[in-house]
Amino acid sequence: MQALIAIDSFKKSMTSQQANQLVATQFAAHGIKSQTIAIADGGEGTVAAFLANQSGGEAITVSTVDLAQRPIDATYGYFSADKLAVVEVAAASGIQFLAPGLDPSNTNTYGTGLLIKAAIERGAQKVIVGLGGSGTVDGGAGILRALGYQFYDAEDHELTMVGADLGRVSRVESDNVLPALKTVQFVTASDVTNPLTGEQGAAAIFGPQKGLAVSAIPAYDQAMQHYMAVVAGQVSDQAGDGAAGGIGFALRHCLGAKVQSGFQLIAQLSDLTAKVSGADMVISGEGQVDDQSFMGKVPIQISEQAQTAGKPCYLLVGNQKGANHAFADHGVTAVLPIVDHVSTLDEAMQQGSTNLAKMADRLARIIVATTKM
Amino acid sequence: MQALIAIDSFKKSMTSQQANQLVATQFAAHGIKSQTIAIADGGEGTVAAFLANQSGGEAITVSTVDLAQRPIDATYGYFSADKLAVVEVAAASGIQFLAPGLDPSNTNTYGTGLLIKAAIERGAQKVIVGLGGSGTVDGGAGILRALGYQFYDAEDHELTMVGADLGRVSRVESDNVLPALKTVQFVTASDVTNPLTGEQGAAAIFGPQKGLAVSAIPAYDQAMQHYMAVVAGQVSDQAGDGAAGGIGFALRHCLGAKVQSGFQLIAQLSDLTAKVSGADMVISGEGQVDDQSFMGKVPIQISEQAQTAGKPCYLLVGNQKGANHAFADHGVTAVLPIVDHVSTLDEAMQQGSTNLAKMADRLARIIVATTKM
Repeated sequence: MQALIAIDSFKKSMTSQQANQLVATQFAAHGIKSQTIAIADGGEGTVAAFLANQSGGEAITVSTVDLAQRPIDATYGYFSADKLAVVEVAAASGIQFLAPGLDPSNTNTYGTGLLIKAAIERGAQKVIVGLGGSGTVDGGAGILRALGYQFYDAEDHELTMVGADLGRVSRVESDNVLPALKTVQFVTASDVTNPLTGEQGAAAIFGPQKGLAVSAIPAYDQAMQHYMAVVAGQVSDQAGDGAAGGIGFALRHCLGAKVQSGFQLIAQLSDLTAKVSGADMVISGEGQVDDQSFMGKVPIQISEQAQTAGKPCYLLVGNQKGANHAFADHGVTAVLPIVDHVSTLDEAMQQGSTNLAKMADRLARIIVATTKM
Repeated sequence: MQALIAIDSFKKSMTSQQANQLVATQFAAHGIKSQTIAIADGGEGTVAAFLANQSGGEAITVSTVDLAQRPIDATYGYFSADKLAVVEVAAASGIQFLAPGLDPSNTNTYGTGLLIKAAIERGAQKVIVGLGGSGTVDGGAGILRALGYQFYDAEDHELTMVGADLGRVSRVESDNVLPALKTVQFVTASDVTNPLTGEQGAAAIFGPQKGLAVSAIPAYDQAMQHYMAVVAGQVSDQAGDGAAGGIGFALRHCLGAKVQSGFQLIAQLSDLTAKVSGADMVISGEGQVDDQSFMGKVPIQISEQAQTAGKPCYLLVGNQKGANHAFADHGVTAVLPIVDHVSTLDEAMQQGSTNLAKMADRLARIIVATTKM
């Protein structure tokens, strides 16, 4: 019996690889062999997943700044044979850097731009940018500025392009952009389909979780429309432009990025479909599954592959919200919540790895007992 | 495929029968047939379990008093063909009646005695008394008094025999006991092995949970020794006498009760061993399993029977405390906690039946998927 294990990270608790390994160890103790795939959706863990699934890569750590321009070190992945870099927006512009006093008006993605610049200077000819987990709503202006774009107001003062500058932009200069940009191929890894502006736009949908007051959304959205018109010559509702507070727009419009699903990128890289077909069962999971999971979250994408291949699929999760049959419709044999007694969220997160191992052990015992029945 | 389902009650949430039925319904939806056994350990639910497992019984509700002499209605089971009554101490003298200001010194089991008396007056020739869940520590004196025993102090005043009277008893009269007591056969259903007095006695071990201050234990235990000496002529450390705050002693010494394990009584009545052998798997469970479960709690007694018969056994529980392998050593294939997201105890108890049904559904799905693998 062979299991394919591809569990998404449990945020703040376990990486995909750690979760996979815990389950594989428990299964092995009951005689169930397994193969693991490190998985990610373009957010935190994307670099680690690429490095785990494809050999020849290295983690490169460089000096950059966070979303509030504070100096930090951050890491990207580099595959020299392919001249391929993998950059996570979360690494330098992630929501984890937010603090009291910080909100979209005074933050930007400049630090992510510095990471991309470093990768290009190292020789990257292809840059995959994972868009998940960002803490900014700057329309990607910070990234553009780090790569050499210059933004000016009506009085010809150069702007640093925090969110508060979006409405003041009067013109953009590209004379000083990195020359290599002409030949570098960009790919955005994202599953978000929101446009940059409007009711489903970056400010309206993602602003509040990044500290934007709900009362400030209309003005912020107006400023974003202004910015888009200045940079692109028109306001459009292109799906995906709103990803990561508008980075989707900047990468697509200015850098010619191809948009790909973060999950699909990893799935191709790791040969997921073939591995699902070759396994007797599939294990995935993440911190929580709920109604949102059916909007393309990784564990459900995996369960749908298992369904197509006719394999049982189990999701090991911290929290399950929603009825079993709703998940069964998407190929999930059973969602298995790992909490084993009444506990607070903090306790549950602290006990995450213990609880995951215990649930994997239970599942293995049930399967082995049933096959002997 | 056929399952035997015998789940203990989830205290304050579901009876054994309700839990069994929920699981049976989920299993049936996946094509797994089942047989159910209502289960109890001599505590709350014992009467219901007898009535569920043996035909020809009826629930008789009579007026009595609770442990603080407040009028209540309470129910016992009666099987007229066998002249058999089943009485739960919890029904009239249960710990659920404790309230601020009540503790062992001012409570007794008189109300349980009235239930036994009613059963005998109805014609019972055999009375099974389930000892679990009591809220009193009166050495069973309240029961004895309700059946006609009279207790006097040194000045010949008759005592009502709340706990505070234990140390004052100077003599006991049995002239006015119910005549039928001579021929009635008593059986106590209990798994408790504590003696009446001493370090492992009723006051020391069970007093605190019934409101006895720890500082009051030594004096209370002295009074209990005095009571025992007056009633029995000597102080002994007979195992089981300490059950239900000393009811074990009163029933054994004064009423000639045979002591039986509460679980064994139900197991015999329901032909449990044969049904385990005839099933493909066994399902049990209760509100919580932990280290204490290995001291003879019902689900573990059932899992040990499954182990002997070589059948997989699953425990559906509210809380699991302890490692999987500790339960596996006792024949439990897997303990399956039913909580499916981080929640408070109150929430978990409110969602008990929903969560139990969901976990049963998951288990059925795993088993069915594995058999098709």
